[in-house]
Amino acid sequence: MKFSRRNLIKSLAALGSVGFSTKVLAQDKSNPNNLPPNLPEWTPDLGAGVDENPYGSPSEFESNVIRRNVPWLTASSQSSVNFTPLQDLEGIVTPNGLCFERHHGGVAEINPTDYRLMVNGLVNREMIFSIEDLKRFPQVNKFYFLECAANGGMEWKGAQLNGCQYTFGMVHNVQYTGVKLSDLLRETGLKPKAKWVLAEGSDTSGMTRSIPIEKILDDCLIVWAMNGEALRPEQGYPARLVVPGWEGNMWIKWIRRLEFGDKPYMTREETSKYTDLLTDGKARMFTWVMEAKSVVTSPSPEKPILYKGTQQLRGLAWSGKGKIKRVDVSLDGGKNWRTAQLHAPIMTKSLVRFTLPFEWRGEELLIQSRAMDETGYVQPYIQDLQKIRGKNSIYHNNSIATWLVSKSGKVDNVRLG
Amino acid sequence: MKFSRRNLIKSLAALGSVGFSTKVLAQDKSNPNNLPPNLPEWTPDLGAGVDENPYGSPSEFESNVIRRNVPWLTASSQSSVNFTPLQDLEGIVTPNGLCFERHHGGVAEINPTDYRLMVNGLVNREMIFSIEDLKRFPQVNKFYFLECAANGGMEWKGAQLNGCQYTFGMVHNVQYTGVKLSDLLRETGLKPKAKWVLAEGSDTSGMTRSIPIEKILDDCLIVWAMNGEALRPEQGYPARLVVPGWEGNMWIKWIRRLEFGDKPYMTREETSKYTDLLTDGKARMFTWVMEAKSVVTSPSPEKPILYKGTQQLRGLAWSGKGKIKRVDVSLDGGKNWRTAQLHAPIMTKSLVRFTLPFEWRGEELLIQSRAMDETGYVQPYIQDLQKIRGKNSIYHNNSIATWLVSKSGKVDNVRLG
Repeated sequence: MKFSRRNLIKSLAALGSVGFSTKVLAQDKSNPNNLPPNLPEWTPDLGAGVDENPYGSPSEFESNVIRRNVPWLTASSQSSVNFTPLQDLEGIVTPNGLCFERHHGGVAEINPTDYRLMVNGLVNREMIFSIEDLKRFPQVNKFYFLECAANGGMEWKGAQLNGCQYTFGMVHNVQYTGVKLSDLLRETGLKPKAKWVLAEGSDTSGMTRSIPIEKILDDCLIVWAMNGEALRPEQGYPARLVVPGWEGNMWIKWIRRLEFGDKPYMTREETSKYTDLLTDGKARMFTWVMEAKSVVTSPSPEKPILYKGTQQLRGLAWSGKGKIKRVDVSLDGGKNWRTAQLHAPIMTKSLVRFTLPFEWRGEELLIQSRAMDETGYVQPYIQDLQKIRGKNSIYHNNSIATWLVSKSGKVDNVRLG
Repeated sequence: MKFSRRNLIKSLAALGSVGFSTKVLAQDKSNPNNLPPNLPEWTPDLGAGVDENPYGSPSEFESNVIRRNVPWLTASSQSSVNFTPLQDLEGIVTPNGLCFERHHGGVAEINPTDYRLMVNGLVNREMIFSIEDLKRFPQVNKFYFLECAANGGMEWKGAQLNGCQYTFGMVHNVQYTGVKLSDLLRETGLKPKAKWVLAEGSDTSGMTRSIPIEKILDDCLIVWAMNGEALRPEQGYPARLVVPGWEGNMWIKWIRRLEFGDKPYMTREETSKYTDLLTDGKARMFTWVMEAKSVVTSPSPEKPILYKGTQQLRGLAWSGKGKIKRVDVSLDGGKNWRTAQLHAPIMTKSLVRFTLPFEWRGEELLIQSRAMDETGYVQPYIQDLQKIRGKNSIYHNNSIATWLVSKSGKVDNVRLG
């Protein structure tokens, strides 16, 4: 369904044609002294000057827009995760201060002057690079999403965490600046037997993952900047690995070493962790790609519907296999679907913003979104995934979520069927 | 000239094939105890957990990457400007904390609950909108640059401020989220005589500008978000006007009113200010469009060349008339030009990142960049502008700058000819 201007006007007309703003919100808590035609209290005040905040911060009125963690989810905050407040965000850029964090030994604090990246193993020349060395190679600037393999992991056993932030917030999207590993490796050369890379972090956990060389040479990057500025400490300052479209755990932060070998290294993080335990006790391994997924960010459990009439539904879609081709939205639990508008730029392995206007007259809704990528892959229901994988999984839940909108406008995360 | 892989390899080979990193930088101050094969001091430390920074900040090692003002430039910091550190940034996203500020009465502090936008004058229905009302209209997400008309204003009289930040830093680029004024105005209607808009801010300066209705209906927005999150206070929280491609002074912050009239309002900010004083004492008025411009951000006065051999020159280009089509770079003061690589996405009225590799053997360079947009407009030299406008101007200096690279690698802002 294309957006209908007539519908919008009809709906707004129903609210009265003039000055509807002060009437539509039952919970309106505004101070009448500040409303037109009065001069608001902030106008006579000479505000802060240009020398007060050399590096700016959000408004104090936005103090609820923060990363949040779930203390009971993990044993320590240093080996834990927090979540991006997707429900509060617009567009496709995640502000650096709100990019979710997942650490296994806390945030390493690295003096960039002392930073080095070592390349060793099955290469022709073992080499060591400083940050300044890395910057001598041709640079690329790319928007990519990063999603933790465990995003939505609690949901395998039902609708358990009642929030958009907690069920979908282990994903962020920034523009990275760095160098292609395929360029860097031309300097070291590769021996014919080199088939796998061990990527190693320099944090306390000594995070290590094996990556097949085809992926490394295809589109992997070593980056030093996100959204224009230096990587944030919690995102691997001064340099991290970028593995576009693949699970976030492989994007080694504070990266210190790439070792080339002829087989996977079978590290803890790809054997006991980041594998999908099936019902027969066997595990799916090396399930790296983050498949097509989407989420309606508003309405959502944190963003109830405030008024009847025209709503602007909005959400995010992404695919580790390439570009998002289409997003459909259902308001009735999957019986009927409408195609949402995708907002440019639509880039490969990047978040895409979608919107869909709809009319709400106070009825119950079951909101779902379903992404399709350029390979034709369609985001599944969790029942489809569970037929194959059972319910032991923690990882790779890219299923369709359902938001139940009550007659009051309240929104809850529910499981259908 | 296309980038040559052979040249890069040749140049790197000249440095020695293994471990060149620890030798190339004369000013290397790294601590050998932290370098391979030693275990760096940060690895044994269990770092910060995920609950320590609900809204993150840059590394302490990046404390020099800040907005800077020039105290002597203006009489008070509340009616003044600071500058974006372009020389430290990569890609095309300006982090919100580093977007330059220009205020005429300091930063208004507005409780968003009390915020209202009034539309009055030659409309069919005068209306008042809250933020929630605005969010009921179809939403758009667009990357746009914002440049102050006075960016580079000191340079009309010669090369006066020796820094990329001070000569080019009154520009930033973010993704905005908001509504089209053409959509909003369908609700108010417009009387046939409505030809101009007075846009009024609610800060102490009561900033007001006149804008022709063709522009308002073409692509102007009212926005509440930048780079995904709420507008920053210094950028007009909770809502500002976006006037794509036109001078930043018109992008009224903390906007409270749009009045429609049949002629321009001739406010202070478009008569005594933001006009271009010519040599005959007359002034060019309503010179709104920010024409094609570019800057080499590295090397630049703040980013000297650190080593001989392969360099990755990088810069930014933009045009208020549409998309950037091409950027050429000269290393010899304009005698010879090479075409730089433009990095996708290339969007209309948005910053574009360009890069160009080159070899440096210690000779003097005169670096210039020259942008061309999709209309065929080519960025001029200042002498071309001065032939028409003289030297009284403050505004609309989009001329080609020259960075002189000395044999030591030091870089200075100079004026040729």
